[in-house]
Amino acid sequence: MKIDIISVVPALLDSPFAHSIMKRAKEKGLLEVNCLNLRDYTKYARAQVDDYQFGGGAGMVMMIEPLVNAIECLQKDTTYDEVIFLTPDGETFDQHIANELSLKTNLLLICGHYKGVDQRLRDHFVTREISIGDYVLSGGELAAAVIVDAVGRLLPGVLNDETSALTDSFQDNLLAPPVYTRPVEFRTWRVPDILLSGNHAKIEQWRHEEAIKRTEERRPDLLEKDDD
Amino acid sequence: MKIDIISVVPALLDSPFAHSIMKRAKEKGLLEVNCLNLRDYTKYARAQVDDYQFGGGAGMVMMIEPLVNAIECLQKDTTYDEVIFLTPDGETFDQHIANELSLKTNLLLICGHYKGVDQRLRDHFVTREISIGDYVLSGGELAAAVIVDAVGRLLPGVLNDETSALTDSFQDNLLAPPVYTRPVEFRTWRVPDILLSGNHAKIEQWRHEEAIKRTEERRPDLLEKDDD
Repeated sequence: MKIDIISVVPALLDSPFAHSIMKRAKEKGLLEVNCLNLRDYTKYARAQVDDYQFGGGAGMVMMIEPLVNAIECLQKDTTYDEVIFLTPDGETFDQHIANELSLKTNLLLICGHYKGVDQRLRDHFVTREISIGDYVLSGGELAAAVIVDAVGRLLPGVLNDETSALTDSFQDNLLAPPVYTRPVEFRTWRVPDILLSGNHAKIEQWRHEEAIKRTEERRPDLLEKDDD
Repeated sequence: MKIDIISVVPALLDSPFAHSIMKRAKEKGLLEVNCLNLRDYTKYARAQVDDYQFGGGAGMVMMIEPLVNAIECLQKDTTYDEVIFLTPDGETFDQHIANELSLKTNLLLICGHYKGVDQRLRDHFVTREISIGDYVLSGGELAAAVIVDAVGRLLPGVLNDETSALTDSFQDNLLAPPVYTRPVEFRTWRVPDILLSGNHAKIEQWRHEEAIKRTEERRPDLLEKDDD
């Protein structure tokens, strides 16, 4: 899978993809991530990529032309399954979308910055708009990092133990049950006896009950969701 | 404001805080962010911080002892308003929580990794659990970066133009209206005439109508929210 990312501050993404699971995914050749600098695609003086918004108001707007130059230049070499614009008013990213995107071959992520991008880019060049949550960030870079991470770890072979992702929260519309490790007792707090019992059937039953209990307490909305 | 972050891969967070708005916030002395390595606080051999989970199953669990060592060591110097554990089954982060956290003085963020942390840490040392969305990441590091960014940009003086954050999506339970910048015409697509009219009252009315329209189309749920 290849993910290209267009950003005005690509250096912001240097470290998130250079460590841990994303590093392993790249080293294994399972995931290629390229962070491209939008300023390399502008024809304006001083590598300008933004300008004041029409109609007045605070905040700069990213110009359409450098972005279209970048997209069309990249499209000469790559056919993208989706051209995704990261924006707080997009479709809310969740595990279902992560699963869906993990089946794609090539994705192009466009990071907004400043006050947003010229609407005409969104109308004519973007195929999908995604938000990672109901909050505003300085730019789309961290949203891109989140999507690359959430999607990348689902690629077969990326996680050391593939059954691990299947028991994560959200994969079955349930939150994960509590987990415990050594020591059995810390200060006065003990691990639940059931987990030390060695009775695998009972342990699985306890975990399922705890997962349902936690979901009912914290996120009853998930229990009403259809698996789509 | 000071935000301390405990992580097993602190280097993953090197670049997100070294650029753009977060860099400026730090340089202005408005925000101090410290990324601490959990492995510096373990007494186990080979800097071990995780172990197999009791009851069996895929995925390692972060041990309680190194985390408690780290928390209690940091608490000698700092009184934290909140000890926040980042986990997909936490309360869902949104702009209201960002606003609320931006009023705090000291925050401690704990990044989960692997299969999660020993539940006893969550029961006895964590004051708040936050998720940045309904998806699973390799670890809490990107979630921490998202929260630092969303909160940090709200600190007075961080954004160059303070009125900018007030007109962002979610601050009034509305999505932001479309924005446009030069050129007036790109290929065949023109900026809406109203934005070129110079009539500020009409422009503001148009923007408000567009914000409501976009919110109705994309996120009708936001319109039903009470402002808390």
